[in-house]
Amino acid sequence: MDSVSNTLRVLVATDCHLGYMEKDEIRRHDSFNAFDEICSIAEQRQVDFLLLGGDLFHENKPSRTTLVRTIEILRRYCLNDRPVQFQVVSDQTINFPNRFGHVNYEDQHYNVGLPIFTIHGNHDDPAGVDNLSAIDILSACNLVNYFGKMVLGGSGVGQITVYPILIQKTPHAIRWIRPETQGDSSVSDWFNIFVLHQNRVKTNPKNAVNEHFLPRFLDFIIWGHEHECLIDPQEVAGMGFHLSQPGSSIATSLIDGEAKPKHVLLLEIKGSQYRPTKIPLNSVRAFEYADVSLQNEPDLDPNDPEAVLDHLSKLAHDLIVRASEKGCKRPELKLPLIRIKVDYTGYSTINPQRFGQKFVGKVANPHDILIFTKSAKKRQSTNEKEQEKELLRPEELNQQNIEALVAESNLKMEILPVNDLDIALHEFVNKDDRQAFYDCVQHNLEETRVKLSEETDVLQIKEEKDLMEKVSQCMQERILKGRSSVKNGPTRNHTISQIV
Amino acid sequence: MDSVSNTLRVLVATDCHLGYMEKDEIRRHDSFNAFDEICSIAEQRQVDFLLLGGDLFHENKPSRTTLVRTIEILRRYCLNDRPVQFQVVSDQTINFPNRFGHVNYEDQHYNVGLPIFTIHGNHDDPAGVDNLSAIDILSACNLVNYFGKMVLGGSGVGQITVYPILIQKTPHAIRWIRPETQGDSSVSDWFNIFVLHQNRVKTNPKNAVNEHFLPRFLDFIIWGHEHECLIDPQEVAGMGFHLSQPGSSIATSLIDGEAKPKHVLLLEIKGSQYRPTKIPLNSVRAFEYADVSLQNEPDLDPNDPEAVLDHLSKLAHDLIVRASEKGCKRPELKLPLIRIKVDYTGYSTINPQRFGQKFVGKVANPHDILIFTKSAKKRQSTNEKEQEKELLRPEELNQQNIEALVAESNLKMEILPVNDLDIALHEFVNKDDRQAFYDCVQHNLEETRVKLSEETDVLQIKEEKDLMEKVSQCMQERILKGRSSVKNGPTRNHTISQIV
Repeated sequence: MDSVSNTLRVLVATDCHLGYMEKDEIRRHDSFNAFDEICSIAEQRQVDFLLLGGDLFHENKPSRTTLVRTIEILRRYCLNDRPVQFQVVSDQTINFPNRFGHVNYEDQHYNVGLPIFTIHGNHDDPAGVDNLSAIDILSACNLVNYFGKMVLGGSGVGQITVYPILIQKTPHAIRWIRPETQGDSSVSDWFNIFVLHQNRVKTNPKNAVNEHFLPRFLDFIIWGHEHECLIDPQEVAGMGFHLSQPGSSIATSLIDGEAKPKHVLLLEIKGSQYRPTKIPLNSVRAFEYADVSLQNEPDLDPNDPEAVLDHLSKLAHDLIVRASEKGCKRPELKLPLIRIKVDYTGYSTINPQRFGQKFVGKVANPHDILIFTKSAKKRQSTNEKEQEKELLRPEELNQQNIEALVAESNLKMEILPVNDLDIALHEFVNKDDRQAFYDCVQHNLEETRVKLSEETDVLQIKEEKDLMEKVSQCMQERILKGRSSVKNGPTRNHTISQIV
Repeated sequence: MDSVSNTLRVLVATDCHLGYMEKDEIRRHDSFNAFDEICSIAEQRQVDFLLLGGDLFHENKPSRTTLVRTIEILRRYCLNDRPVQFQVVSDQTINFPNRFGHVNYEDQHYNVGLPIFTIHGNHDDPAGVDNLSAIDILSACNLVNYFGKMVLGGSGVGQITVYPILIQKTPHAIRWIRPETQGDSSVSDWFNIFVLHQNRVKTNPKNAVNEHFLPRFLDFIIWGHEHECLIDPQEVAGMGFHLSQPGSSIATSLIDGEAKPKHVLLLEIKGSQYRPTKIPLNSVRAFEYADVSLQNEPDLDPNDPEAVLDHLSKLAHDLIVRASEKGCKRPELKLPLIRIKVDYTGYSTINPQRFGQKFVGKVANPHDILIFTKSAKKRQSTNEKEQEKELLRPEELNQQNIEALVAESNLKMEILPVNDLDIALHEFVNKDDRQAFYDCVQHNLEETRVKLSEETDVLQIKEEKDLMEKVSQCMQERILKGRSSVKNGPTRNHTISQIV
C-alpha cells in the first residue's frame, strides 16, 4: 500500500489531432473516439495524471464544433471526486502562466480528479499578438494544465529557459523538464522527464532534434510529433536516459508508420525506477498499408492496363480482409483505411478516384487508396530507404517556401525581407491569420519610410512600392495554392514553423 | 428578512459586444472593461443572477483573445462560494440543451455562485452544421446558461416553440418566457419575463417586432439589440406589460442614441410586483454627439472653407470639453469618442481623415469624427426625423441583399433559389463560413439533377450551368465588397439574419 502511494502513475499519449477530418462523413468522429478512449483508460487505470505531448488539436484554429466536443470530453473525465495525490511544488505561476497561475486541481471552485498536463505541438502552437494557443482556451476553462509555453519577452532573443514542473508524491518526489538545478535538492534526487514535440527522423538533420544533444541528467524522454507508435522505451546509447515515442492516436497520413497498432503508455515511477506498460487503443480505425512495385510483380504486362487494375483491386481486397480480421469491433469504425503505394516504373498510372469507386462503402478512404511513385534512377546508397520514407512524411511534403518563390519570380526583394514573408505565409496558411501579409507589408513599409527619410527621392520609393505590389500579387496566387493544398490533405509546412 | 428571501433579484444587461474594436490600440479593452463592471455590479449587489439579452460577443467567431478574456472574466465572477437561492423547476434538459442538460450551478463539480442566463443575439447566433454559437463554448465550460436556442428539427418548419424557464424562490415563484401554460399552475401565478433580441424601431416594420404583437400574459419585456439606453421600464399601452430596453454597454456606432449614459437594470421581483433600479456604468468611454447643419449656422460663408474648418474644429473642442466634464475618471478611458454629423447642403465636404489629424491624442476616434450628410429636398412629413435616424442605425446600413443584386444583374435564376443565396451570403459574410456558397450550389445542383433526370437534354443543363457560373462569379465580387464593408466598420446586414 505504501509502495502504491509512493508510485506516481502517469498515462502518456500524444498527437490526438482533435478535429482531424471533421468534415468527412465517415471519419469525422475518429479523433474524438480515440481521445475519449485515452481519457477512459486514464480513468480506469486510476492514474495520477494524463500527460500529452502536443498536437491535441489538428487545426491551429479549431472549429467551434471541435472546441465544444473537446471541452465536453475533458469535462466528463477530468472533473470528478477522485482525490489528487500529488503536489506541484515548483512555482506554479511560472509553470502555468495563465491569468490564474496555478495547477488546475488546486482551484477551489473546480472539482478536478484527473489532471491533464500538456504542451502544444506545431499544429496548435500559439499565434497572434497575444501569443495564444487553442490550448489556452482549455487552460482558461481550467480543464488542462498547459506548460512549456515560451513567454514572450521572457528571455533574451535566441534564449529559451525551460522551467521544470516539480511534482511530489509523499514521500517521494519527481521532477520533470529541467536543464538546471533549482533549490537545494540535487538533480539526481528527481526523476526527470522531458516532453518534446519535434521531428526525430535523422535524415533531415536541419529540421530534427538529435536525442544525443539533450542533457544527460534527464531520465526519460517523451517524444511527440512523430506519428509512428514506437512506444516501448528504448535506452539512448551513451546518454543514460530512455525514450518513448508514443505516436499519434489517429492516422493523419496514410504511411507505413501509421499502420502500426496505436498505443498509449502507462508509466509507473518509483524512485529512479519506472515500469512501462503499453496499452492498445481499441477505438482507432483499422489501417492497412501495402507497398508494391509493379515491375517486380510476376506476369504483369505493362501493356495490359486491365491486368494491372485487377492486380491492384485484388491487393486492396486483401487489405480489407486483413483489416477486418484484426480490426476493431466498434460498428462506427467498421470501414478500414487502406493505402497501396504503387511504384509504377515502366507502367501507366490509374486514376485513383475512379479506382476508388468500387470501394465506396467498403473502406473509409475510397478516393485515395492508391498513391503512385516512380523510382528515379536506383541509387544504391545505404540510406535510400530512409530518404524515400522521409519524402512521404506528412510534415515534409509542403516544403516550398518563399525563398523558392522569390527565386522563381526573379524579383529583387529590397524592402520586404524574405524571412518576414516566410513567417507571414506560415501565419496566413497554418494559423488562418488574414492580417499576416498586411501586417508584414505595413511593418516593413514603415521601417523603410523611416530609413529613407527625406534624402531619397520620390521616384525610388515609387519603384520599391511597385515591386512590393508585384510581390504581393504573386503571394496571393501562391497563397491560394497553399491553402488549397492544406485543405486537400493533412500536409503542413513544418520548416516555417521552425523559423518562427 | 423573509421579504428579502422572497424577492428575486436580477441584474439585466445586454449587447456587451465583447471583442468590439479589439484591434484598435485605444479602444481594444472597452468592451471588456464594461462587461467586467457589469459582473462586478452583480457581485456587489448580490443579485440572484445576471440576465443578458444577446450579442455578448461582437463577432460570430470571436478571436481566441476575446474568448480567453471572456472566459477569464466569467470565471472570476461566476465561480465563488455564495449560495444560489433559487431553483429552476422546469425541465432543464429542454431549457439548456447542451450535453450536460442542467443549470450550471447544479453541476456538482463547479462552484457557481453567480449564475448567468443569456440568449444569443444576431452577432453571436448559431451557425454551421452543428448549429453552434460562440455562447455554446461558454456553455460547454459551464460558465453560462444559454437558453432560447432553437433546436434544429425540434419543431415543424416555420414553427418555433418557446419553452419557459421556471424559476422558483421559496416560497415564491417566477416564470419567464412562456407562451403557454405548463403543468398545473396558471400563467398568472408566475411573473413572466420575455427576453428578446430584435429591431424595435417602428419605421421599418418589415424588420422589426411590434411589441403589441406579443402575448398579453407576459409581465415584463427585456428588449435587446437596440443600443440606445431606454432602460426605465415603460408600460406598453393596452398590453398590460412593461418593457425595458437596457441598451448596449458599449457604443458600436457613433449615433445620437449611443451617446446617452449607459446603464444596467436591477430588477427586484416579488409576487406580481417589481422594483426597477437603474445603475450607471462608470467604465464606459465618454461619447459626445452633435448634429449640425452648416446652412443654419450664422455667418458661415460657403466660399470660405477655412471658416467651415474652424467652425467644426471649435465644435469638436467643445465636445471634448463636455466629455471631460462628465467623462469617467479611469485613466485608460480618458480619451472620449466624439462625432459630429454635418449637413453640408450648399457647402463642400472636408476630408474627415485630415480633419482628425489634429485630434490624435485628444479623442479615441480621430479619423471618424465627422460624418457628412446632405439633406435631399426637405420633406415636411412628420416622421422625417425618424427616417433619418433609421438611415443611420448600424444594423440597417448594409441592407443590400441578393434580391437586389440579382435584379441588377439581369440574371434569370432558375436553379439557384435567391433565398438560398441570401442565406449563403449571410453565412459567408457574417459567420465566416467559407463553404456556404459551395454547399448552396452543390445542394441545388444535386436537386436539379434529380429533377431533370433523363428526360432533359444535355444542352439545357449546360445553359443552366453557365448561368450558375455567372451568378457565382457575380457573387464573388459582391462578397468581397461585403466583406470589406464588414471589416471597415461595425455595420452588419441584419435583414438577411431575419430571413435565416
